[in-house]
Amino acid sequence: MENILKQDYKLDQTKFLNQVHVFAPATVANMICGYDILGFAVNEPGDEVILRKTEELGITILNITGDDGKLPLDPFKNTVSHSAWKLFCDLGLDESFGLSVELHKKMPIGSGLGSSAASTVAGVFALNELLGKPLSKDQLLPYCMEGERLACGSAHADNVAPSLFGGITLIPSHEPLIVRSLPVPEELYVALIYPKVDVPTKEARRLIKNNVPLEKAVKQWGNIASLIAAIYEKDYDEIGRSMQDEVIEPHRSLLIPYFDEMKKIALENNALTFGISGSGPTVMALTKSEQIAETIVSEIEEFLNEKSIEYFSYVSKINQQGPYLKK
Amino acid sequence: MENILKQDYKLDQTKFLNQVHVFAPATVANMICGYDILGFAVNEPGDEVILRKTEELGITILNITGDDGKLPLDPFKNTVSHSAWKLFCDLGLDESFGLSVELHKKMPIGSGLGSSAASTVAGVFALNELLGKPLSKDQLLPYCMEGERLACGSAHADNVAPSLFGGITLIPSHEPLIVRSLPVPEELYVALIYPKVDVPTKEARRLIKNNVPLEKAVKQWGNIASLIAAIYEKDYDEIGRSMQDEVIEPHRSLLIPYFDEMKKIALENNALTFGISGSGPTVMALTKSEQIAETIVSEIEEFLNEKSIEYFSYVSKINQQGPYLKK
Repeated sequence: MENILKQDYKLDQTKFLNQVHVFAPATVANMICGYDILGFAVNEPGDEVILRKTEELGITILNITGDDGKLPLDPFKNTVSHSAWKLFCDLGLDESFGLSVELHKKMPIGSGLGSSAASTVAGVFALNELLGKPLSKDQLLPYCMEGERLACGSAHADNVAPSLFGGITLIPSHEPLIVRSLPVPEELYVALIYPKVDVPTKEARRLIKNNVPLEKAVKQWGNIASLIAAIYEKDYDEIGRSMQDEVIEPHRSLLIPYFDEMKKIALENNALTFGISGSGPTVMALTKSEQIAETIVSEIEEFLNEKSIEYFSYVSKINQQGPYLKK
Repeated sequence: MENILKQDYKLDQTKFLNQVHVFAPATVANMICGYDILGFAVNEPGDEVILRKTEELGITILNITGDDGKLPLDPFKNTVSHSAWKLFCDLGLDESFGLSVELHKKMPIGSGLGSSAASTVAGVFALNELLGKPLSKDQLLPYCMEGERLACGSAHADNVAPSLFGGITLIPSHEPLIVRSLPVPEELYVALIYPKVDVPTKEARRLIKNNVPLEKAVKQWGNIASLIAAIYEKDYDEIGRSMQDEVIEPHRSLLIPYFDEMKKIALENNALTFGISGSGPTVMALTKSEQIAETIVSEIEEFLNEKSIEYFSYVSKINQQGPYLKK
């Protein structure tokens, strides 16, 4: 496999650490109207990776928690070890020492929260920290995308980019890869509710039509354009108005039980907007205060309790930092 | 016909003038990637209207120049008098005095430069000036759109909004009508070349397919999003890269002779981008200096001379003012 790393880097073995413990954030891809081009990171949930130097060569997975036994322990089938190992080899270190990985999943898998992306970013970021930070985040990004290729079949960046860079990211082009960080309106809060139903990403993508009526495409790109302007202007009302999706949501929401009812509850409780996170089934409301986000979460929780649907829920600001070292 | 004017206004007859002479700018709709949602105004060309109070009731067109006899002198078929008269009636002035209109076209008709929009905006703006400015530009906009309904069959705003407000305007929604003014990157210059061939707007719109492949729609809205971000960031390279159109241009450019050759000349001479203005046949290059714009215009002029195609050409900054009173 070709060496991805074409830019300069400088390894200083005196800076190498024996162990690092990293958190990487979950992400909300698409931002409702920006299918395949927009995403943001949240403060919680997120995944954690503990990476250690070992004398034995090669990479091993010591332990995975929080995955209900769903993730492979084979290091070449697991996205964390796969992408970290690729970077390790490209840096020419695979004959010097080995690596061991602990992965602690703190969020549901296949939930539309960029679960595989958070794990991969945690692993790749952890390796860079372990090696004394020889690389920039721009250089780490392609390795994180390799993890997505293993997890989802294509090396897309709409979850790994916001998880790695933090904040709101725009990916206007994949060939060449362009990632722009947008300013984050300070007052935004995110309410996330994951109803425990299974919606595999591939299935959710399959539901999307291959053609978009021009009229809907124009409406969608008008809304996307206005969302970007409203983000720069900190225009919260227009952020809410513009985040509507007539192209993807009508199809994907069919896979999410009680989507319309949850949307109604969120909007009646002053959500700026409500929609699907990534390919779902997690749903997302943006609000202008923590209080409003908390109210929406508890109202929807009450509703889901009545319907006997299990869930996880989170209230968070937009994460502006990306991954970080745990003490 | 319903009174459009639902907002407050205050007429002060002591402020009424007897005559005003107004210039309104031509406009570049679509901005290549932003079909039906983006547009900007230029300093030249533009149309001029002279509006006078008359004792005789009603509205008359005294004179039209520069139209090669193409425009109707019947005041209810001409967009300028039609839209100004509608406003005049909605203000309840039609029994008080009359109006006479002179229209001086300073740009080609049916050229993709928002010719009818510039005339209409000049007329509506002139009436507001004649009456001592009782209305805001927001209040004038629907009257300008009425002119577009008469000229093109639909009350779209993508030329009248930038002509009226100046600068770069984004229209993310028609129902309800939302117009956002975007910041104007100071160093942008526009090179416009109108090859004298006939491309009626309706014909150009007819060529557009009713469905867009999702993949192309995603690419288009990625580029639109990045254009908006790049406008806020004054990132001229990304403004250029993002302004590409794979949805509309492949069809519309077929109506413009030597489109590909002109594009090649522009890009070889350091245009940031090149494409169709509105529905064409005028073509447009954006550049980062007046010198580059001048060079592109003269190179394309030389090429068109060789091909025996007549043309008009203009080099301008983006107009930030909209219409104004001529001395």
